[in-house]
Amino acid sequence: MSRLRVVLLAVLICPGGLAATEPLEQLRTAALQDDRAWELVASLTSEIGPRPAGSLNDRRAVAWAVDRMERLGFENVRAEPVVVPHWEAGTTSVEIVTPGPQELHATALGGSVGTTDAGIEAEVIEVADQAALEAADPATIEGKIVFVNHRMERRKDGSDYGNVVKARGSAAWVVAEKGGLAVVIRSVGTGPHRFPHTGGMRRREGQYPPIPAAALAVPDADILEYQLRGGSAVRLRLRMTSRRLPDAVSANVIGEIVGRERPDEVVLLAAHLDSWGLGTGAVDDGAGCAIVMAAAKLVAELPERPKRTLRVLLTANEEFGLTGARAYAEAYADSMEKHYLALESDFGAGRVWRFDRRFGATGEALAHRMLSALSELGVADGPNDATGGPDLSPLRTFLVPVVELQQDGTYYFDYHHTADDTLDKVDPEALRQNVAAFALVAFLAAEADETLRPIPAYPPRKR
Amino acid sequence: MSRLRVVLLAVLICPGGLAATEPLEQLRTAALQDDRAWELVASLTSEIGPRPAGSLNDRRAVAWAVDRMERLGFENVRAEPVVVPHWEAGTTSVEIVTPGPQELHATALGGSVGTTDAGIEAEVIEVADQAALEAADPATIEGKIVFVNHRMERRKDGSDYGNVVKARGSAAWVVAEKGGLAVVIRSVGTGPHRFPHTGGMRRREGQYPPIPAAALAVPDADILEYQLRGGSAVRLRLRMTSRRLPDAVSANVIGEIVGRERPDEVVLLAAHLDSWGLGTGAVDDGAGCAIVMAAAKLVAELPERPKRTLRVLLTANEEFGLTGARAYAEAYADSMEKHYLALESDFGAGRVWRFDRRFGATGEALAHRMLSALSELGVADGPNDATGGPDLSPLRTFLVPVVELQQDGTYYFDYHHTADDTLDKVDPEALRQNVAAFALVAFLAAEADETLRPIPAYPPRKR
Repeated sequence: MSRLRVVLLAVLICPGGLAATEPLEQLRTAALQDDRAWELVASLTSEIGPRPAGSLNDRRAVAWAVDRMERLGFENVRAEPVVVPHWEAGTTSVEIVTPGPQELHATALGGSVGTTDAGIEAEVIEVADQAALEAADPATIEGKIVFVNHRMERRKDGSDYGNVVKARGSAAWVVAEKGGLAVVIRSVGTGPHRFPHTGGMRRREGQYPPIPAAALAVPDADILEYQLRGGSAVRLRLRMTSRRLPDAVSANVIGEIVGRERPDEVVLLAAHLDSWGLGTGAVDDGAGCAIVMAAAKLVAELPERPKRTLRVLLTANEEFGLTGARAYAEAYADSMEKHYLALESDFGAGRVWRFDRRFGATGEALAHRMLSALSELGVADGPNDATGGPDLSPLRTFLVPVVELQQDGTYYFDYHHTADDTLDKVDPEALRQNVAAFALVAFLAAEADETLRPIPAYPPRKR
Repeated sequence: MSRLRVVLLAVLICPGGLAATEPLEQLRTAALQDDRAWELVASLTSEIGPRPAGSLNDRRAVAWAVDRMERLGFENVRAEPVVVPHWEAGTTSVEIVTPGPQELHATALGGSVGTTDAGIEAEVIEVADQAALEAADPATIEGKIVFVNHRMERRKDGSDYGNVVKARGSAAWVVAEKGGLAVVIRSVGTGPHRFPHTGGMRRREGQYPPIPAAALAVPDADILEYQLRGGSAVRLRLRMTSRRLPDAVSANVIGEIVGRERPDEVVLLAAHLDSWGLGTGAVDDGAGCAIVMAAAKLVAELPERPKRTLRVLLTANEEFGLTGARAYAEAYADSMEKHYLALESDFGAGRVWRFDRRFGATGEALAHRMLSALSELGVADGPNDATGGPDLSPLRTFLVPVVELQQDGTYYFDYHHTADDTLDKVDPEALRQNVAAFALVAFLAAEADETLRPIPAYPPRKR
């Protein structure tokens, strides 16, 4: 008999278990009929739209979130100021000058410097990927524009992102060190459509790479590749107006459903409020904001408050350096031991298909109750090695137990960080299933008597 | 027994039929293994790219086509100059000013005038479609920007295009007459991605509408609709740099496979060389150019030349007024009676699924041979009321017999007239099937002894 079946049987046999299923059933039923998450993501994307950190729209989004949390009846609603970097993508023009003049669709990578008005014109050298770039003889790079022609594979868990994103983060550093003038990468994404994907570059000692870096849409990378295969030298011209502006003030927006018995103990539900500037931030991460807000609201609507406090945290500037998440960890360092559990929604709105967590041995029974509650939503058991999402990474040093509700990410990287990340890419039914899963896990955590600590140690430098 | 089965049986029984199947079999086999059409469309889209009439790239495309036809061994290769209008799309900025400021993705409709640098700012009024616009009280339109919020349905035969495209063609005229300042339409297209679809507007006495007109990408039309549903007045600002430039010289590019017995009789294979400026013109109509060139080349490679001449015609400026097609009809008016048959490829590269034609009664046997040859490619019988494609429309007055190989257009309007019309949207296998179908029909027409005239009269104003 599987572990799951034992659990289900236990729930059926145990009268306490039976009683405990009532609010679960109520939550699940309500969530699967509830359109508030949809309304929230529709409003955020349609009324506010793109909201890159530090922009005017970022501030509009903070005001929106405070207003919505108050209207939903959250308690202790607050916007906690966070100083964020402010980078403007500006306009990006990449054109093939010879042999076949053509304008390519491109966008600046996050943090890129711009060019002069005249731009940079140089011969292109192609490298297969970041490893090939690192191995390349500097003599072949010097004075050139480097084209990193890697390809990302479509996977349900999105796990090829980690491989390909290295070049987005670091290629410009390597090219600069080898004397290259600029870098263009094939977009880190899986979509066949003509949308370049942006995303952050790595900083070193707080600085971004000193040369311009842009991503080409996949069909445009194909055009460049075609011309390179023709045998003649290919020359590109880049013109970019991207630039850093003075730091700006944004905010983490927080709202709570205060617990009835242990109000100082927190189940943290996180998502990020900011987005890149190209799309309207629907799958990344308007959906996440909507999921955690709607899930907490549904728990608040149960006949009885849960024992612990549910805290919804919409972070500032996840995209461009996790500023809000770091600020939260710092501001709440003293109460980290009171964080019973943290979970985050930042992988779109695909259906939740697997329940991962990182619990200590004494948390096993709670994991079983969670899995049992989730199984009706089609969620399977996963490993006990969850790391949380990006915004939970500053909580790792505090060894906060986490749940990761793994979403189906098959199409996530078609839209993520592109202009095509818009409301219509969110499936209302999958969104409701997400809300249900988050509500169930949040409720069970807020009610549980088990101790989840100490959690298994994190491996060094995972993610 | 179906008509098709009778035909197949006749082919099997009749020894002449058997002999005649040899070149057909050779053509079909060769076409389904041939990648020259792919190489042609890859080269045209990757080396030349967008080629709107009158542009520098239009001239580059003409030179490309002449060069390719010569390299393929076509005879009488020539570029016949055509004076074309030259309209530049420029940049289009459409933003919601209030209540929720947001930049929308938009593009100028073909022929639109631009705005001043300050642009046009006004309240938006929504109408459901062209009929509603025509019925609207001018008092509701005056001083406003009109949003035509029609929707196009996805159909295999693309037939909803004809319904929705009316507004693209004529809304700006109606809005101008009712005192409106500008018009934005929901894109005439079926794709859910964030690409506005352009396309020509109707001229009246050679003039385009006097007010600016733009199309919003579908997700952006959704955003505008959302804000309009909110109850507050919505104000838009349009800034467009679109403009007419002096007429320019382009060319119809023609190449022939001269017939062995009746070289003055012509089977015309047409497609258009120009494209809109947003995409690289892969499905519209690079694929068509490649299909007709490759099909004629395959016929030329048979052991024996066909009796009649195959003439490949790549027209100038289909998109912005059928200039090349009209010029061809005028230049060749005297030899129109020698046009035995005309066919055109201008609906992408989806598989051919139906054989339509417009033949006189004496052409029935040829229609049967064509259908028989096509049936192995999965092509079904269609009606005898074909009209030919847009570039064949000037030939209608000459009552030239036509074949229309109907392609599967289910996804055609996802890409058509958008930036996303790129090479990767062409399926190499479907492209080969098209080449096979065109080669078979062209060969059978070039060999046939039947008379196809007089064809059934065209209904008044069909299409």
